[in-house]
Amino acid sequence: MATETLIPSSANRVLRVGILGFGTVGSGAYRMLKDNRDAIQRKVGFGMEVVRIGIRDIGKPRDLPSDLFTDDLESIVDDPSIDVILELIGGVDPAGRLVERALNNGKNVVTANKELMAKEGSRLVHLAKSKGLDLHYEAAVGGGIPIVQPLKHQLAGNDVLKMMGILNGTTNYILTKMSRENADFGDVLAEAQAKGYAESDPTNDIDGFDTTYKISILASIAFGKQVPVAGVYREGIRSITKEDIRYADVLGYVIKLLGIVEPLSADRLLVRVHPTLIPKGHQLASVSDVYNALWIHGDFVGDLMFSGRGAGSDPTASAVIGDLIDVGRNVAIGGQGSAIPWDMGIETEPIESLETEYYLRLRVKDKPKVLGQLAMIFGEFDVSLAAMEMRVVDAVAELGEIVFLTHKCNEGNFRKALAEVGKSDIVDRVCNWIRVEG
Amino acid sequence: MATETLIPSSANRVLRVGILGFGTVGSGAYRMLKDNRDAIQRKVGFGMEVVRIGIRDIGKPRDLPSDLFTDDLESIVDDPSIDVILELIGGVDPAGRLVERALNNGKNVVTANKELMAKEGSRLVHLAKSKGLDLHYEAAVGGGIPIVQPLKHQLAGNDVLKMMGILNGTTNYILTKMSRENADFGDVLAEAQAKGYAESDPTNDIDGFDTTYKISILASIAFGKQVPVAGVYREGIRSITKEDIRYADVLGYVIKLLGIVEPLSADRLLVRVHPTLIPKGHQLASVSDVYNALWIHGDFVGDLMFSGRGAGSDPTASAVIGDLIDVGRNVAIGGQGSAIPWDMGIETEPIESLETEYYLRLRVKDKPKVLGQLAMIFGEFDVSLAAMEMRVVDAVAELGEIVFLTHKCNEGNFRKALAEVGKSDIVDRVCNWIRVEG
Repeated sequence: MATETLIPSSANRVLRVGILGFGTVGSGAYRMLKDNRDAIQRKVGFGMEVVRIGIRDIGKPRDLPSDLFTDDLESIVDDPSIDVILELIGGVDPAGRLVERALNNGKNVVTANKELMAKEGSRLVHLAKSKGLDLHYEAAVGGGIPIVQPLKHQLAGNDVLKMMGILNGTTNYILTKMSRENADFGDVLAEAQAKGYAESDPTNDIDGFDTTYKISILASIAFGKQVPVAGVYREGIRSITKEDIRYADVLGYVIKLLGIVEPLSADRLLVRVHPTLIPKGHQLASVSDVYNALWIHGDFVGDLMFSGRGAGSDPTASAVIGDLIDVGRNVAIGGQGSAIPWDMGIETEPIESLETEYYLRLRVKDKPKVLGQLAMIFGEFDVSLAAMEMRVVDAVAELGEIVFLTHKCNEGNFRKALAEVGKSDIVDRVCNWIRVEG
Repeated sequence: MATETLIPSSANRVLRVGILGFGTVGSGAYRMLKDNRDAIQRKVGFGMEVVRIGIRDIGKPRDLPSDLFTDDLESIVDDPSIDVILELIGGVDPAGRLVERALNNGKNVVTANKELMAKEGSRLVHLAKSKGLDLHYEAAVGGGIPIVQPLKHQLAGNDVLKMMGILNGTTNYILTKMSRENADFGDVLAEAQAKGYAESDPTNDIDGFDTTYKISILASIAFGKQVPVAGVYREGIRSITKEDIRYADVLGYVIKLLGIVEPLSADRLLVRVHPTLIPKGHQLASVSDVYNALWIHGDFVGDLMFSGRGAGSDPTASAVIGDLIDVGRNVAIGGQGSAIPWDMGIETEPIESLETEYYLRLRVKDKPKVLGQLAMIFGEFDVSLAAMEMRVVDAVAELGEIVFLTHKCNEGNFRKALAEVGKSDIVDRVCNWIRVEG
C-alpha cells in the first residue's frame, strides 16, 4: 500500500493528496490547506501537498499551475505516489467507482458525498475496513458541523432514542425568508436562485432528497445498519404557503424541513423527511437562514444539539480538512485506519405507523355546526382536535378557513379521516396538513 | 503491555476495565456499561467487563458484589490483567499519580478529571503518546457534549478565532433561577445546595475554578500549547445581583458565566472566566438551567455551537463510555492509540489588554450635571458611554442609580477611569461592573 511507504522518519515527510473535483468544496479545501499550512503541519507532524486535481473541463482558465490539473480522474486514483484522495465530485457515478478504485489501490479516502454514502456507504466502509484504510465523510452531513464522528465515537455508548435535524441550508433559508417577509414560496425560491443559494434545478434540496441522504447516513451510523434511501419517507417544502407559516406562528410554532429518525422497536426504524411544525421554544426553532442543526436524544446523554453552517465552500472545507488531518495522523503512526462499517438489513416502518400530532387547514362552508360535524368524522378515526383558528375567507360564497391541531394520533387513521372529511359536503377543500413535533 | 495480549482473535474476547472512584460519575459509567452491554459489544467487537472498582470507604454498603471493590487503588493500576482504567476520582492527588502509574504499566486511561488535565495534561498526554496508549478525557469538559474530540479532530484545520463557553451547570442554574424568579444570589445558592445542584462548599463552581480548568483545557487543545491555569483571568458570580440581571434584561442582555479564549496575536492568548452580558439574540443566551454550551468561531467553519447536559451521572457517563469504546476499538485493531499531546509555553495576556464593552452600575448624587461630569472623567481615559438607564433610589438622600454601557474600550483604561470616578464627590458608590460580549 502507498500508505505503508509513508510512515515518517522525519518532519520533512509529506502526505501527497489528490483532489477529485474543484468546485465549491474542492477549491475551498485547497485554499484551507494553503492558508493554514503551518498550523496543519504542526498538528499532523508532517506536511500536506496537493499534487493532482481532477476536473471535468481542463480548458477552463484557473489561477493555479495548469500541470496540477487533469481530466483523467482514474490517473489520480491509480497514481502510486498519491497517499490520500479527496472525493469532492458528488453523485454516485463516477464518484463511487473512483472511491472504490482508490481504496483498492491502498489509498485513504475523504469524501463529502452524501448521496454516495447514503447509497453505497455500507459496501465502501467495509472495503476500507478490510484494507486497513480510512474512509471519512464528516462533510457529507451538516457541512462544517462535527456530527458524523461524534455520533460514531463520543455518543457511541448511547441508545439513540430520537434524532431530528435541519440538514439542508437552502430549504431552511427559504422557510426563514418566507416567515420573516410573509413571502410566497415561489418568489423566495426565485430570489434564492438569483443569489446562488439555490440551484437552477432545485429539486435535490426543495423536494427533500438532500435531507433524505443525510438522515439516512446518520440513522445508519446510530443504529449500525444501512438505512436504505428508499426506506426513508420523503416530502419537500413546495406545498408550504405563507398562510401555513402565519397560522403556525399564531399557534406558537415555526415550520422547518426536518429529517427525523426514531426506533419504533429494537430493529424497526421510522425515518422520515418532511416539513414539520416545531414549538418556538424548541432549540431547533431558532436555527435560521442557511444554518443547519442536529438535535439528538440519547438514553444517557439526554438532549444534545449541534448547530452551525451546513454548507458552503469554507465550512465544508473545514470538515474535509479535519478528516484529512486525521488520515495524516493515522498514517504518521502507521495506523490501520478507523473505518467503522455498518451492515445491511434494518427494517424501516411505513409512515402510516407514525404517531404524532397534525396541523390541518381546511376551506369549509361557513355554516353552523360545521365544527361539530368535523369533530364527529375525525372522532370516528380516533383523531381528536385540539387548538383551532378560524376566519371567514369569502363572505359572499360563505367560505371559511379552519385550522386545527390534533392530539397525538396514528397517521394511518389520520389519513383515513382526511379522506372522509374531503368527501364531506361541508368541506370545500383540504388546503394543507403538516406533521407536528412536540 | 497488557494491551498487546488483548488483540482479539475471536468475538469472545473481553476488555477488562478497572474503575477508580464510584461516586456520581463512576456509578453512572458502570450502569451504562451494564444497561447498553449488547449494543456496546456490537460496536467494539468484543465485550467490556468491569473487574475491579477502587473506592475510599470499603465499609459502605453497596448493591454490587463486595469482591468487586477495593480501597487499594494502586492494586488496580498495577493489576496486569486490567486493560483500561477509568479515572473518576477527580482532583490532582492521588488521581494524577494513579493515571501516571497506569500509563507506565501500559494501560489505556479514560478520565473525567478537568483539574488534572488542566494542570498536568501536557505531561500526561505526552506520556501516553510515548507509550502508544490512549489517554481520553472527553468527560472533563461539557459533560456529555462532544467538545474535546471534535476540537482535536473535526475542527483541527481551523484557526480558532474565539471560543466562548457556558461550562459550569451549577452557576448557569443559579443565574437562570435568579433571572426567572428575580431572586437574590444567596437565596438561590442555598436552594441549589438543598437540592444537590451545588456543593456544600460551592467555591469550585461559584468562584469560577471549574470553568477555569475547562477553558484552559479547550484553549490548550485549540492552540496546541498548555495554557496554565494561573494564566487564566478568573472572576466568579458572587457579585451578581438581581438588580444587575434586571438592568441587563432592560438593555437587551442576559448574564452568563463564560469561559472565553481568543488569540490577540499568533502566540499570545487572552483566556478569561467572568460573568458576561450577552445579547438575548446570541445563541448562548438561550442556554439555561444546568445546560452547558460551547460556541466556537473558526476561520473556515464560521460559527458553531454545541449544547447539552454538562454534568450529572448519566451525561458524564455517556462521554466516559464513548471514550472507552474508542479505546476498545483501538485495542481491537492492535492500534497505537491516538493521544494528541500539546506542548508547554504559550504566553497569556493580562486582563488589562482586553478590549471590550462594559456594563457599569453607579450610585450617584442625584444632582444636575452629574451625567456630564461622569462622561468627562471617562472621556479622559478614552472610555465613551453608550446606553443608559437611570432611576432615583433615595429621594431624601438625593441618591440615584445610573447604569451605563460603554463603547468598546481598553480594560486598563476602563479600570483607571473607574478609580478616578470612585474618588469623585458626585459618586456615592461603584455598585458593579460587568464585561459585555457583542
